[in-house]
Amino acid sequence: MTQPLIGVTYQIETPHDPDLIAEKIASDQSTGTFVELPGETQSVKARCAARVSAVRHLADVSVPAWPTAHSGPYHRAEVDIDYPLDAVGTDFAALQTIALGGIFSMRELSAARVLDFRLPDEYRCYPGPQFGIEGSRQLTGVQTGPIIGSIIKPSLGLLPEDTAQVVHTLCQAGVDFIKDDEKMMSPAYSPFAKRVQAIMREIDRYKQQSGKNVMYAFGLSSIDPDEMMRRHDIVAAAGGTAAVVNINSIGMAGMSFLRKRSSLCLHAHRNGWDVLTRHPEIGLAFTAYQKIWRLLGVDQFQINGIRAKYWEPDASFIASFRACMKPIFTPHDRSLPVVGSGQWGGQLPDTYLQNGQSGDFMYLAGGGIHGHPDGPAAGISAIRQAWEATVSGVALSDYAKTHSELAASLKKFES
Amino acid sequence: MTQPLIGVTYQIETPHDPDLIAEKIASDQSTGTFVELPGETQSVKARCAARVSAVRHLADVSVPAWPTAHSGPYHRAEVDIDYPLDAVGTDFAALQTIALGGIFSMRELSAARVLDFRLPDEYRCYPGPQFGIEGSRQLTGVQTGPIIGSIIKPSLGLLPEDTAQVVHTLCQAGVDFIKDDEKMMSPAYSPFAKRVQAIMREIDRYKQQSGKNVMYAFGLSSIDPDEMMRRHDIVAAAGGTAAVVNINSIGMAGMSFLRKRSSLCLHAHRNGWDVLTRHPEIGLAFTAYQKIWRLLGVDQFQINGIRAKYWEPDASFIASFRACMKPIFTPHDRSLPVVGSGQWGGQLPDTYLQNGQSGDFMYLAGGGIHGHPDGPAAGISAIRQAWEATVSGVALSDYAKTHSELAASLKKFES
Repeated sequence: MTQPLIGVTYQIETPHDPDLIAEKIASDQSTGTFVELPGETQSVKARCAARVSAVRHLADVSVPAWPTAHSGPYHRAEVDIDYPLDAVGTDFAALQTIALGGIFSMRELSAARVLDFRLPDEYRCYPGPQFGIEGSRQLTGVQTGPIIGSIIKPSLGLLPEDTAQVVHTLCQAGVDFIKDDEKMMSPAYSPFAKRVQAIMREIDRYKQQSGKNVMYAFGLSSIDPDEMMRRHDIVAAAGGTAAVVNINSIGMAGMSFLRKRSSLCLHAHRNGWDVLTRHPEIGLAFTAYQKIWRLLGVDQFQINGIRAKYWEPDASFIASFRACMKPIFTPHDRSLPVVGSGQWGGQLPDTYLQNGQSGDFMYLAGGGIHGHPDGPAAGISAIRQAWEATVSGVALSDYAKTHSELAASLKKFES
Repeated sequence: MTQPLIGVTYQIETPHDPDLIAEKIASDQSTGTFVELPGETQSVKARCAARVSAVRHLADVSVPAWPTAHSGPYHRAEVDIDYPLDAVGTDFAALQTIALGGIFSMRELSAARVLDFRLPDEYRCYPGPQFGIEGSRQLTGVQTGPIIGSIIKPSLGLLPEDTAQVVHTLCQAGVDFIKDDEKMMSPAYSPFAKRVQAIMREIDRYKQQSGKNVMYAFGLSSIDPDEMMRRHDIVAAAGGTAAVVNINSIGMAGMSFLRKRSSLCLHAHRNGWDVLTRHPEIGLAFTAYQKIWRLLGVDQFQINGIRAKYWEPDASFIASFRACMKPIFTPHDRSLPVVGSGQWGGQLPDTYLQNGQSGDFMYLAGGGIHGHPDGPAAGISAIRQAWEATVSGVALSDYAKTHSELAASLKKFES
């Protein structure tokens, strides 16, 4: 009987023969070790041995990515390895250990990167997003086009009442979504319960006034899952609808625990991820990384933006956006892409055109809204004007001639 | 009033002025963003602004570690930044986001590595190891010298009864400790409960026979903390004393959850860690990494060994061993260093001499025991003989003249 397979694509770099190294990865990561063992029988191998299904040679390099005592050239290749489902099972803890994380320790490699993996239907056991794209639209009431969001700034240091004042301003300014900065969790000067109380008072007041329920995502991350759930329950009891989750800080078990019990829309911040991916020969591509977190239950996924303030090149952002929009098993397992980092509206035409003219995303501006010369309301108007121009195919500079808020943004942020 | 400080030491590489970049890190990672904000007041800064306390310039390099559009040279520096305790609090989720993980996204850097950090006394709130060095000795009955352990091999593919047979052999051979390979959790062919039952039968039988309680560490990792606790309880109910925890697979929240509820000795496997540390200019040094996991509750910490089969150079292993043995707050927060990877006894003299002639470690051999020409009992005898020679200051080759098991190991593994 043929077993279902988990297929992983690696990019490797090695001073040795890449075909032999591919075989060594398959052996080391399943049934082998550094000496031959009598127990590695045919039945053990049939059950669990991984198999190399393809090796595609790439150009050599003369400088290794990781230090090595071996002289070059260093051969590069893409390697596909199939793991029998039995060898791994369906727990991501096992997938991470066996198929993803283990290869980075191999002495024979001078670089390794997990490019992607394919999961068999048995992985449909994961819950996936509870809200995702449609749920985010329902909760915010934004039926088409991007959900416009902002971040509390300064990120650290505001007392709960100060934060509530910023929320008041942003609500009046017309945002659909507000979030704690990812750095904000529950410091002594802004304890979680007090912050929720102060902020929800403003959210509720604005809802009474306008009929609009602004989604606020509270930073509930903690390495203590019990504490995370206490924070979750405080938000839910206060009528809040969302939470910021620092996925790399809490880890897969924290995310799984939260998703199983959560009634909130989970907005993932991937801070720290850069170290896994920034070197193009090392680590884990976002395409692979995001699959795990989506299946674990991320509803909204922060992924930078065009001309981000961070290091990520536009091409990488665009690939990330497309990855989030591609179903793993069903369209419901897609997370809403959250476009952020140095955004102010000027990047909307490229965001739209490069991503298949999709309006299914959140557009998140912190400094771009708070830093608008005429204040946050003008900052949000400028973004909405930029979106109108974008979908109408009008150049921003033309649209700005009759839209003063956009004109002011162009003047301040475009340099 | 002066606040307690969290001090972080980074190594950075940048085409820009390292002193200015150090200031930017301190600002970005606390109260600043990419534009000036009216809300970043003096009281906000006093509460939360991070401060650069030192910049030590290092030699320039001509090739950047991360791709950058900027031409070189690339300046390197060690940078010390102090974060006020209020800015971070005592949750490692916040420490990770604010002080450790955030810097890797900075566009202006062409490399960044967290070398170390210092925590104020407020971090004594973490539980630390429940057993650690002393508890591991009590549970195994090994009063001095290394605890000798082995790993079930092949790592994957054995049915529970096959595994029990290996356990039987290893017990009879005289090991103090046995563990599931880190890849073994609960696959369909070896479900956790059945494996525990089959293995504990052998452990108990050997205890009846010999009086010796061999410690078996079961691989209970799962991204579902509830499932992890079910597995924990199965081990505890069966009289087991230890568990293998794949710390990077479950993450900090998983570890914290487990430690709070655990009655088992937690043996940490750091698989996947290599990707965070293998490039010397990028990521997180083990010195920093291990502090977090020790305070979260790791009792036994796998750290490779001399002449490991993996990439790690001996100097890095030795620094890791010493890091584990250095108290953070008290001697009780030390984890037992677990020396492994390609070990067979021949590395014991260097292990001993390079680590201050300490015998406080576990010595873990998989292939080195299973692959001994005369079987596992001879493999373990060879290791014990190598230790006797080591503490007596006798060369292994001399000791082997009158100790045939060690002689056979030298012949097979030393090349």
